[in-house]
Amino acid sequence: MNEHPLQPLAHAIRFLSIDAIVRATEGHQGVPLGMAEIATALYARHLRFNPAAPTWWDRDRVVLSNGHGSMLLYCLLYLTGYEHITLEQVRSFREFGSHCAGHPEYAPELGIEVTTGPLGQGIANAFGMAVAEAYLNARFGDDIVNHRTYAFVGDGCLQEGIGQEMISLAGHLRLHKLTLLWDDNQITDDGKTELSISENVAERFRVAGWHVVEVDGHDIQAVSRALDAAQGSDRPSMIACRTVIGRGIPRVQGQRGGHSARLYEDDAQAARELLQWPHAPFDVPQDILAQWRSFGQRNDAQHQQWQARVQALPAAQRAEFERVMRGELPSGWQEVLLPFKRSAHEPEQAQGGILISAAINKLLAEVMPERMVGCADLEAPTAHKGGLHAFTADDRSGAYVHCGVREHLMGAMANGMAAHGGVIALSVTYLAFSDYERPAMRMSALMGLPVKYVFSHDSIGIGKNGPTHQPVEILASLRAMPNMLVMRPADATEAVECWEIAMQHRSGPVSMVFARQALPPVRRQYEAENRCARGGYVLHEAQCGARQVTLLATGSEVALACAARAQLEAAGIATAVVSLPCWELFDQQDTAYRQQVLGEQTVRVGVEAALRFGWDHYLGARGGFVGMPGFGAPGPADVLYRHFNITAEAVVAEARRLLVQGTH
Amino acid sequence: MNEHPLQPLAHAIRFLSIDAIVRATEGHQGVPLGMAEIATALYARHLRFNPAAPTWWDRDRVVLSNGHGSMLLYCLLYLTGYEHITLEQVRSFREFGSHCAGHPEYAPELGIEVTTGPLGQGIANAFGMAVAEAYLNARFGDDIVNHRTYAFVGDGCLQEGIGQEMISLAGHLRLHKLTLLWDDNQITDDGKTELSISENVAERFRVAGWHVVEVDGHDIQAVSRALDAAQGSDRPSMIACRTVIGRGIPRVQGQRGGHSARLYEDDAQAARELLQWPHAPFDVPQDILAQWRSFGQRNDAQHQQWQARVQALPAAQRAEFERVMRGELPSGWQEVLLPFKRSAHEPEQAQGGILISAAINKLLAEVMPERMVGCADLEAPTAHKGGLHAFTADDRSGAYVHCGVREHLMGAMANGMAAHGGVIALSVTYLAFSDYERPAMRMSALMGLPVKYVFSHDSIGIGKNGPTHQPVEILASLRAMPNMLVMRPADATEAVECWEIAMQHRSGPVSMVFARQALPPVRRQYEAENRCARGGYVLHEAQCGARQVTLLATGSEVALACAARAQLEAAGIATAVVSLPCWELFDQQDTAYRQQVLGEQTVRVGVEAALRFGWDHYLGARGGFVGMPGFGAPGPADVLYRHFNITAEAVVAEARRLLVQGTH
Repeated sequence: MNEHPLQPLAHAIRFLSIDAIVRATEGHQGVPLGMAEIATALYARHLRFNPAAPTWWDRDRVVLSNGHGSMLLYCLLYLTGYEHITLEQVRSFREFGSHCAGHPEYAPELGIEVTTGPLGQGIANAFGMAVAEAYLNARFGDDIVNHRTYAFVGDGCLQEGIGQEMISLAGHLRLHKLTLLWDDNQITDDGKTELSISENVAERFRVAGWHVVEVDGHDIQAVSRALDAAQGSDRPSMIACRTVIGRGIPRVQGQRGGHSARLYEDDAQAARELLQWPHAPFDVPQDILAQWRSFGQRNDAQHQQWQARVQALPAAQRAEFERVMRGELPSGWQEVLLPFKRSAHEPEQAQGGILISAAINKLLAEVMPERMVGCADLEAPTAHKGGLHAFTADDRSGAYVHCGVREHLMGAMANGMAAHGGVIALSVTYLAFSDYERPAMRMSALMGLPVKYVFSHDSIGIGKNGPTHQPVEILASLRAMPNMLVMRPADATEAVECWEIAMQHRSGPVSMVFARQALPPVRRQYEAENRCARGGYVLHEAQCGARQVTLLATGSEVALACAARAQLEAAGIATAVVSLPCWELFDQQDTAYRQQVLGEQTVRVGVEAALRFGWDHYLGARGGFVGMPGFGAPGPADVLYRHFNITAEAVVAEARRLLVQGTH
Repeated sequence: MNEHPLQPLAHAIRFLSIDAIVRATEGHQGVPLGMAEIATALYARHLRFNPAAPTWWDRDRVVLSNGHGSMLLYCLLYLTGYEHITLEQVRSFREFGSHCAGHPEYAPELGIEVTTGPLGQGIANAFGMAVAEAYLNARFGDDIVNHRTYAFVGDGCLQEGIGQEMISLAGHLRLHKLTLLWDDNQITDDGKTELSISENVAERFRVAGWHVVEVDGHDIQAVSRALDAAQGSDRPSMIACRTVIGRGIPRVQGQRGGHSARLYEDDAQAARELLQWPHAPFDVPQDILAQWRSFGQRNDAQHQQWQARVQALPAAQRAEFERVMRGELPSGWQEVLLPFKRSAHEPEQAQGGILISAAINKLLAEVMPERMVGCADLEAPTAHKGGLHAFTADDRSGAYVHCGVREHLMGAMANGMAAHGGVIALSVTYLAFSDYERPAMRMSALMGLPVKYVFSHDSIGIGKNGPTHQPVEILASLRAMPNMLVMRPADATEAVECWEIAMQHRSGPVSMVFARQALPPVRRQYEAENRCARGGYVLHEAQCGARQVTLLATGSEVALACAARAQLEAAGIATAVVSLPCWELFDQQDTAYRQQVLGEQTVRVGVEAALRFGWDHYLGARGGFVGMPGFGAPGPADVLYRHFNITAEAVVAEARRLLVQGTH
């Protein structure tokens, strides 16, 4: 068999990977050794990229969904000439502080499009990128936005449920610029894939409406032809590449150990002999490196032509394109919320919490066409479709994605959209189902992506559907997540303030938590200041004397705290109500402010229709709490609040008990 | 068309459901009205059940995976004569305290096999039940265990990723006694399924190796024939039943509103006219009721014969069968752990935490053949296969299920196993991936099922794989879950004590959390008492005087606290170390014990390589904490512990800082 002229380039990936993994004493050789030819075919002939401009907005996106095979990506970035991924970085693979970490970590300026590792997330992110591309293409036209999304994918990503969620919806939406390159090596960490799967995976894609090509993954020409075919298809493409895991290392290739068994110098030596690679460790011959470097340069002209086309856009259109790609909000956007906020304190605004959020979002959608809303088959009860129309196979201009009952995909899609840029992703479902999305939410937080998670039906207040649908621990579990703002507004005024904050928060995700039931106004007058911006504030100071009691509450329970305060004050007990819509922002305030709000020398009672877990941070172990003792129960909301003793009377009793005890 | 003789029986379901839903003012009519004929076919001709003995061990299991259609199940239980589901209960549908809750809630004695509602869980539970049946069948033979598992399923369950995980693995394992009845009504909450799916779902099952039959779901005879065919198949069966959602109510049938739009008296009346049902609300004519009641009686003889066969078993075999079905542990089981515990304090026991757990589990497996271990493609790094062999399509005697990279299914499978009974389900993966399992874990906790979740790689101690694989918030999020014991042992002695507790804990799930890295003994001598049983205890009391400082730690950080204590004591600061392997058990102790352990008048410092969230319960807001500030980083474990300043020196410094401050 004649060797393909690019074969040495693939071997360069192979040996850089082996050398780095031997040096690191651990790593996953399976992917870079198995997919070296696949990656070479993609980068040499097809990929639209510019290593000198890693964040070129119209670049093709590449996701390494099998993120444990990170050396594949680092090799590609180094070989094609991304500035920050130097040979020194490659040598420092898996060391503390290296860009070449165990798993790729989101850093678009380095060439890393998304953090991957937890399986299935990456292909769902790629799906989200393809959705964002299609939407932006519809907005700005082929001249400005027209690129493809590729994902390297292993068996694990396709076993995970989120993988099927993606396959199903991508096929349905006919996302034809999305291409998966499947490393069909028939080995997972446990050994042969036949231990746990026997279906024809390619057929599963065909059933979902994908264009599928099956090739020898070590045949560069065959992969390249398949990539051509993918570019010509009107459906998303799956290129099933039959490969040998760990190819090139005699001891482990095609074996379970090919996945991630420790490699030694002897293995590197044996591979050099087998593949006739005479070069020293980490030595890529100049001619090979030069060829690799030429691939990125291939796109220089394209990039320049694209820049010229952007320059040539009408000024307003160009400004809009640049604005959304930079993630900037339109100037004056907050004005659209002003009339709403001005009347938010009026009693007739006592709608269901989620409907308040829906009304605000409808206003925002009018001035921010970059907002895309995904919802998991709860359009009617969450009401966030507003004036949007659906994003479909035939209409890419729609900003509302009917995700079906696929919460996990929805969250990971939002991450892909946010990583792509140019759109602001919202993800809407019931709070009880946030657990389905949680692995994706963790990735948003880890990457610091500005995804807006919107949750409805936030407590036992949902009523008769019962404990499966009643979150009691979920506020706590979300608050436990680093780099996630969790906001639970008490009424329409707080809701609009929180949305204002959420839209401006760009360093990480936000969870916006809303009641199903009506939220009567607790803020009784219009104030220009965004009081929620400090995370917590004194809603009502004690009136009948120096503050003895501080009631702390969030969301629907703020009204209840206010009612309790009225009873306590009437009894001559000076009581303040503190609203804490966002703990994370409150904790960022200075000590003096926090102490003043919390009233540390007073009796404190927390009120939230949820578990106490986490509240001791504000209450101390001896503070009082009125909330849930465990899971909920089926029944109407008012009955349940009484049953679980979450009432103004209970708050009053708890405050009195502590006042008598005198321990605070 | 001649009406099938059982058609009035199906209409009895339909009208009971309509009447109950009208009365409740809310509910989901789509399922009971669409699946009335399907259910009638199943119960009339095929199901092996005995309403007089709801928990008959060899009954067929029925799961309503589309749990929002709960009225279907309540009708079936009432009509066939389950004692506790009376007509009064049916009338009280969705009221507080009713057995007929919004969603079915686990109560086998009532006839409710499992709690359902969150979509996809139910069919995965059914899968677990079928696995348990197959395993018990292999253990005890066809005469003793030989029943089928049926699940009603809607579109949502099949859109959820967990649905595909189940389809894939059930097909692979050829679980031929598992049958799904799919309500193919082409409508979801959002409207037509074509909004979000266009694949041929039946074909997806065929690709996965299922036996698929497509029938008219309103044709009782066709469904019955399909059930016959399923019973004859050597593969799991999916009966795709084309149905009309909300069938019988002219205003909503076949429409989006058929799913759960509010129904009124007028609708009930219109349905009565359409279907020529002259009977009053909640009135089931005696002849129809009598026919329904006869179905359960059909199995009386079978049940008695089965009882006779059990009676006729050799005494030892019968005792063993009854023991495992009752969920009792074998007498003297703890003795197998004794030699391990006696030597657990010896320094050579300083293995990796997860390997310690593996060694204990290998001992337990020797005396408890009812233990079944599921693992999500991490056999080697978690090492819990021990001496077990694999449960496969050809060998049902294996107690180790290679779940593939399907964590969510794995957790829900464990729930199904536990709900089935006769097996003890373990579910093994990395702690970072517990989020994938979390929706199933929540169901374990809600149902109070004794599933053992085993987690490895519990902190930054896993090293170079980086933050995607490093849990920092997950201990907190698990501790936030009601009715879940979370145990994080510090060394081999604590590990064996915690496993002892976990095996005895039957009222809910347990999360067993283990380090990857070595856990040197912190318990330096053998003690017969299970000290972990109180959840927390003084490991080392202060020595150089009255206790001034209390260091509280869990897991791998207990050793670190001990090192800090040595430094503090050497400096004359009287310091105790408290180990808190299980917060939930500790919180159940009496106040005096807790106060004595926590040393409330001392300076307290918590130490855990995780976030502080939740710790203020023990530390107060002013206590000290040495742990993680946020997500982790890639790098070797020792480097990371230093980088994040989780060291004995940091603990000492924190204690000194607080001592100087004097605020505690």
